[in-house]
Amino acid sequence: MDQRIRNHAATLVHWSGRVHRGDDVVLRVSEGTHDLAVAVAEEVGGRGANLLSVYGSDEVERAYLRAHDDDFETDPEYELALYENADIVLSLGGGRNTTALADVAADRRQAAARAHEGIREARLDTDWVSTVHPTRSLAQQAGMAYEEYRDFVYDAVLRDWQSLAEEMARLKEILDEGSEVRLVGEGTDITMSIADRVAVNSAASVDYDSHNLPSGEVFTAPADADGTVTFDVPMTVNGRRVRDVSLTFEDGTVVDYGAAQGEAAIEEVLDTDAGARRLGELGVGMNRGIDRVTDNILFDEKMGGTVHLALGRAYAANFPAGHEDERNESAVHVDLIRHMGEGSRLTVDGEVVQRGGTFRWEDGFE
Amino acid sequence: MDQRIRNHAATLVHWSGRVHRGDDVVLRVSEGTHDLAVAVAEEVGGRGANLLSVYGSDEVERAYLRAHDDDFETDPEYELALYENADIVLSLGGGRNTTALADVAADRRQAAARAHEGIREARLDTDWVSTVHPTRSLAQQAGMAYEEYRDFVYDAVLRDWQSLAEEMARLKEILDEGSEVRLVGEGTDITMSIADRVAVNSAASVDYDSHNLPSGEVFTAPADADGTVTFDVPMTVNGRRVRDVSLTFEDGTVVDYGAAQGEAAIEEVLDTDAGARRLGELGVGMNRGIDRVTDNILFDEKMGGTVHLALGRAYAANFPAGHEDERNESAVHVDLIRHMGEGSRLTVDGEVVQRGGTFRWEDGFE
Repeated sequence: MDQRIRNHAATLVHWSGRVHRGDDVVLRVSEGTHDLAVAVAEEVGGRGANLLSVYGSDEVERAYLRAHDDDFETDPEYELALYENADIVLSLGGGRNTTALADVAADRRQAAARAHEGIREARLDTDWVSTVHPTRSLAQQAGMAYEEYRDFVYDAVLRDWQSLAEEMARLKEILDEGSEVRLVGEGTDITMSIADRVAVNSAASVDYDSHNLPSGEVFTAPADADGTVTFDVPMTVNGRRVRDVSLTFEDGTVVDYGAAQGEAAIEEVLDTDAGARRLGELGVGMNRGIDRVTDNILFDEKMGGTVHLALGRAYAANFPAGHEDERNESAVHVDLIRHMGEGSRLTVDGEVVQRGGTFRWEDGFE
Repeated sequence: MDQRIRNHAATLVHWSGRVHRGDDVVLRVSEGTHDLAVAVAEEVGGRGANLLSVYGSDEVERAYLRAHDDDFETDPEYELALYENADIVLSLGGGRNTTALADVAADRRQAAARAHEGIREARLDTDWVSTVHPTRSLAQQAGMAYEEYRDFVYDAVLRDWQSLAEEMARLKEILDEGSEVRLVGEGTDITMSIADRVAVNSAASVDYDSHNLPSGEVFTAPADADGTVTFDVPMTVNGRRVRDVSLTFEDGTVVDYGAAQGEAAIEEVLDTDAGARRLGELGVGMNRGIDRVTDNILFDEKMGGTVHLALGRAYAANFPAGHEDERNESAVHVDLIRHMGEGSRLTVDGEVVQRGGTFRWEDGFE
């Protein structure tokens, strides 16, 4: 077995999931993730924790959903009991075909998801962590060779997370103490208020309330955006490609927008509800192991030297206790990403925190 | 997908498991059984039942057990809750290596099994069914080519079970009304009492209290065996090959024994406890789809034209209500099988029920 698979498992179990003796661990295994599952089982066993493996096969789910008549039972008791009694859920993504569910009607998938909302909540109430095992199907989605994609994923996952968490803590402190963020660059000059907000240090560990491996971003919930921002990273929004999206805000609300490609997809998002025209998130990517865009939000938004803004719903974690209901509400949360390359800068209360993609505490900052 | 896989799934879900709308179904998927799992999911979905798939990987289990320190928690609550709330458990056997757990110390496996005794009981309290998907590893164990083994398994599984259940009901009636069974043949002349016992029609369905697919046997619990019986079907007993085992009984107890091979393994069984020297089961194989021995007890003992006797523990199902505690008790239950070929006969109270392997209601009976 590739030593990197073992290291990935150790990172997932120890750094991310914080598995300890006696923990009831559910391991969700996708079709292509057997080898990582074996490595994770070894780490969980070594901790003396309990293990139950669930088979999360897209092909099994497809067959089940297509044969069903849509009348799904609400939160079947046995599955609810499993997750309500679990301490930690480790999900290994990575199937053999990312489009394995393509011929299941969307309304049937949604009906099944609605019926299992309580189970989903029980799962999210555990110390859950989602990661991906580099499969050929994910390599294909990223437009990369298999070996190349494995290198890409392990570069992103096998970080010195303690060190990165400490670096991210510096940015969190700046954002927590700051009142206004400004982003400047090509096609971009926008200010946002971050007063009285709490930045989250998303360090790929449940101890940081961070549930994805890899992670590596600091994010907060901006308000009162004014100005224009362009996003040069191509994305897939509701199944459609968008490129060079530009948004103009006045008093926190989008008043103009455009895109070189996929403008209709952006229009659809903006028209969802009132909250969809306001920002729900400002995130700063700080994972230097991610060196390219792969059309997978789990990686793209964490990329060092990028920032992302999300239209729509804000996270409660960005508000002080008792103020969670001040957050922007919406049915959507759509991330859009911008490289902060040459000519770009991110300032907090007038002080430059990042210039040309380099933070002020990094080598090469001018 | 091979149509036989779909037919296998339909037999498992409808005939064996009797799955209905709203049932909470756990599907245990082994490493090599993905295709059958997909077909089962389609049948379960078509019934409108609920489905949760568990990944029963020997390699995952091996990694977990080897890394563990032996101090296993008793019946972890989350897994217990899953099975206590489940209605039906469908287990698909068939890995990629039947010896995948060979380097896990036996005492560690036993410690894990002991700690999960409550979970095992909860599982056995459901309407459970175990079947096997024909994998290359099982073909290898059977000494057969893959395609040949697939034919073998589907011939055994894809029976007209309703018709076989009706045929087996005839033998059950004879045994239920009879008092004494006699087996005669080469090296064999033995009588057993079956008075006041209840024969079980094991028709591969939970509705018949039969939990294996394939099945196809009628079995009861004999007492007071007298005489000698030889078993010409080679078997693996406690990991050792035995061949041409011969047992001589007086007043229900083994007083002499021998074997052309593996006599020490038989001696070990007989010395386990007092119950190990008495019979716990007389079974009559009636599945004509099984035409050869494959060293897999799930198939061998069901083979049409064979009978088997088990040393040791008897099943409660063979005793009238309230008399279950009259059954033979032992830590072991070891099946030994005999072809009832030319020159053999099985009589009940002096009437010939089977001669030369042919039942009296079958064509060719003389």
